[in-house]
Amino acid sequence: MISVAEAARLVAATIRPLPPEYLSLRLAAGRVLREDLRADRDFPPFNRVAMDGIALCYAALAAGQTEFRIDNTQFAGQPPVRVPDVTAAVEIMTGAMLPAELDTVVRYEDLTFRTDAAGQRWARVEAASPKAGHNIHPQAADRRQGDLLVPAGTCLGPAELAVAATIGAVTVAVTRQPRVAVVSTGDELVPITQVPAAHQIRRSNAIMLQAAAETAGAITETFHFDDDPAALRQGLPALLTGFDAVVLSGGVSMGKADFLPQVLRELGVEQLFHEVRQRPGKPFWFGQRPGGAVVFALPGNPVSSFVNFYRYARPWLLAVQQPTGPAPAGATPTTAVLTQPVDFKPPVTHFLLVRLVADSNGRLLATPERAGGSGDMASLLTSSGFLELPPEMEHFPAGTVLPAWRFRE
Amino acid sequence: MISVAEAARLVAATIRPLPPEYLSLRLAAGRVLREDLRADRDFPPFNRVAMDGIALCYAALAAGQTEFRIDNTQFAGQPPVRVPDVTAAVEIMTGAMLPAELDTVVRYEDLTFRTDAAGQRWARVEAASPKAGHNIHPQAADRRQGDLLVPAGTCLGPAELAVAATIGAVTVAVTRQPRVAVVSTGDELVPITQVPAAHQIRRSNAIMLQAAAETAGAITETFHFDDDPAALRQGLPALLTGFDAVVLSGGVSMGKADFLPQVLRELGVEQLFHEVRQRPGKPFWFGQRPGGAVVFALPGNPVSSFVNFYRYARPWLLAVQQPTGPAPAGATPTTAVLTQPVDFKPPVTHFLLVRLVADSNGRLLATPERAGGSGDMASLLTSSGFLELPPEMEHFPAGTVLPAWRFRE
Repeated sequence: MISVAEAARLVAATIRPLPPEYLSLRLAAGRVLREDLRADRDFPPFNRVAMDGIALCYAALAAGQTEFRIDNTQFAGQPPVRVPDVTAAVEIMTGAMLPAELDTVVRYEDLTFRTDAAGQRWARVEAASPKAGHNIHPQAADRRQGDLLVPAGTCLGPAELAVAATIGAVTVAVTRQPRVAVVSTGDELVPITQVPAAHQIRRSNAIMLQAAAETAGAITETFHFDDDPAALRQGLPALLTGFDAVVLSGGVSMGKADFLPQVLRELGVEQLFHEVRQRPGKPFWFGQRPGGAVVFALPGNPVSSFVNFYRYARPWLLAVQQPTGPAPAGATPTTAVLTQPVDFKPPVTHFLLVRLVADSNGRLLATPERAGGSGDMASLLTSSGFLELPPEMEHFPAGTVLPAWRFRE
Repeated sequence: MISVAEAARLVAATIRPLPPEYLSLRLAAGRVLREDLRADRDFPPFNRVAMDGIALCYAALAAGQTEFRIDNTQFAGQPPVRVPDVTAAVEIMTGAMLPAELDTVVRYEDLTFRTDAAGQRWARVEAASPKAGHNIHPQAADRRQGDLLVPAGTCLGPAELAVAATIGAVTVAVTRQPRVAVVSTGDELVPITQVPAAHQIRRSNAIMLQAAAETAGAITETFHFDDDPAALRQGLPALLTGFDAVVLSGGVSMGKADFLPQVLRELGVEQLFHEVRQRPGKPFWFGQRPGGAVVFALPGNPVSSFVNFYRYARPWLLAVQQPTGPAPAGATPTTAVLTQPVDFKPPVTHFLLVRLVADSNGRLLATPERAGGSGDMASLLTSSGFLELPPEMEHFPAGTVLPAWRFRE
């Protein structure tokens, strides 16, 4: 039996980046970029007017001129007007390109306007002392042409999509989605459309693990097998070649119907470990078919399979999508502060279900959830994640800071 | 001009729950439940075996019997066997229903087996003192039939889907998705497929706001209008009746091409406010067409529109989906600790772009991002959210705890 750290290391050793694919920007939201996005022009690409008002030449203002003849009006999206006389001004709008001869914008709030007898408009500068360059967002102030804007490995959120659009990245290279087969096993499980007999229950792990895999960016399909070696031998090979990962639940304990480890080995899946010094989820089996799918064979108890998914499978799914760049959110735990003392004696890592709440001092507080063991699926409803209690400690006082894995925000 | 608090209050006053729709459970992931889910049976529905081993009657063990004849084997998914002789045992698997005559399970790890000359198998209990009821997850230990499991107003994550599957909720009532029209305005904006002239830029706010609205659960469609009152008068009415919310960017400042507030009023949209004492995003306009869409008319500067979306529009979108239950994540700010002093003198609320990182003590730290103003779209790339600095303070020392709005994890 191996430690949680060793299990995580063996899982991480199977991480290979998935290949990129090219998608239209609209379809790339939430995906991981696989190319560097660089500035096609300066940011801003021109001296950009940042306020509605008048553009003028600061030298005139500095020389004492307070009233300016309005010679022209320039809107955003128009080529810049020519200004032959730099004692005149241009009425100008936010987003417009500053005329080459001018250098400062005075906003409407600091102006008064009048129209003279000849119909000519004039603006008087009322503000005490506008500065040269005021209300101009100068060309290249934020980024220069060629600068790296979004590095490969970044998850494309709204801000990244906006920047990609600005540089005309109509299609982008992103990691293709991991393909995950979610497989439930167990003779006691009936479809959710069926009324179970007294000794049966409905299949629930499959939809749970499917939804969890999808929140990690995967494309999923669900399958079910009874506890029958022949059915497993027949059904599993296609999953081992057609998917990047196979997430099973059930069939990995010591029971007489726990055929999975043996059948998986028969089918050429190399066992990397079986059983981890952890609670819940000790019987977790992990392997890889050479050149094919990795197999997360999770214990069938709902809390065990759920916690193991978030501890091992979700980080794997995120990592194969993100070969470079910072660790994706959810691939590493955050930290939280225990609100009440916990005792846990067995020398194994304990995954403790907790409610996570940010307090008014910016700290994340973790309150243990009353749970009836690894079969108590309902205990997941009121938990927002779990703490990872290290095996070498038995008593965890209130205030202990521990790694926390979230499964909801 | 009104305060941020007053603006948020006026936005919240327009919140009306969207109607429910009925979806198959598989399609309901991430949606907000609109009915209570109750236990159709006890949880667990029977005395459930929690370990592989043998089931026996504890009274025999207590009376000194250490070896038990194995009379039968029972797998999960089988009806319970009959046990006429309670000095015998049943070999039994995790997930099976405990036979009525027995009350305790001893796991394989605590047993040794032998087969006698007649071919009868026997199990010897080696563990010091198993307890009555050991390794049984008793019927109704977690929840009773009829108990409320998932209340209306809960967002359906993996755990909720699993519980819904368990109770046979093949279809569930969930809030229908908000329909959001995302509209960019501005003559300077060209499609992202086009090479802009020197004074033009590509449209980027639309895809940014679209992606942000979709992460809040919305169905979106994007539109663009030039700064032309006639085009706005012609195009906007269909959006005001066909969508729950219209999110515009641009056209709300003091410029001569900022026609939106006037056109919106002409089209029957009641103005609820225009201009908020905040930076960035002062020119934010908000209104509602009686019986129709609410209109978030955001300033066109990318940082302004982004920050305003997360401060006002995202909470609205989450709230119309969730009429009951706790406030959804993202509808209220979390708290974070400023890592360096910040001075901000103007008597307005300041939305300060920050990087948010959890430290090793469970605290969320906020480090201000160097930003070139509300036009500096690239500053959004390295920020993970923004702090809300109240208007009545000018100096914010390092260590100040402030409300933080996240736009990425």
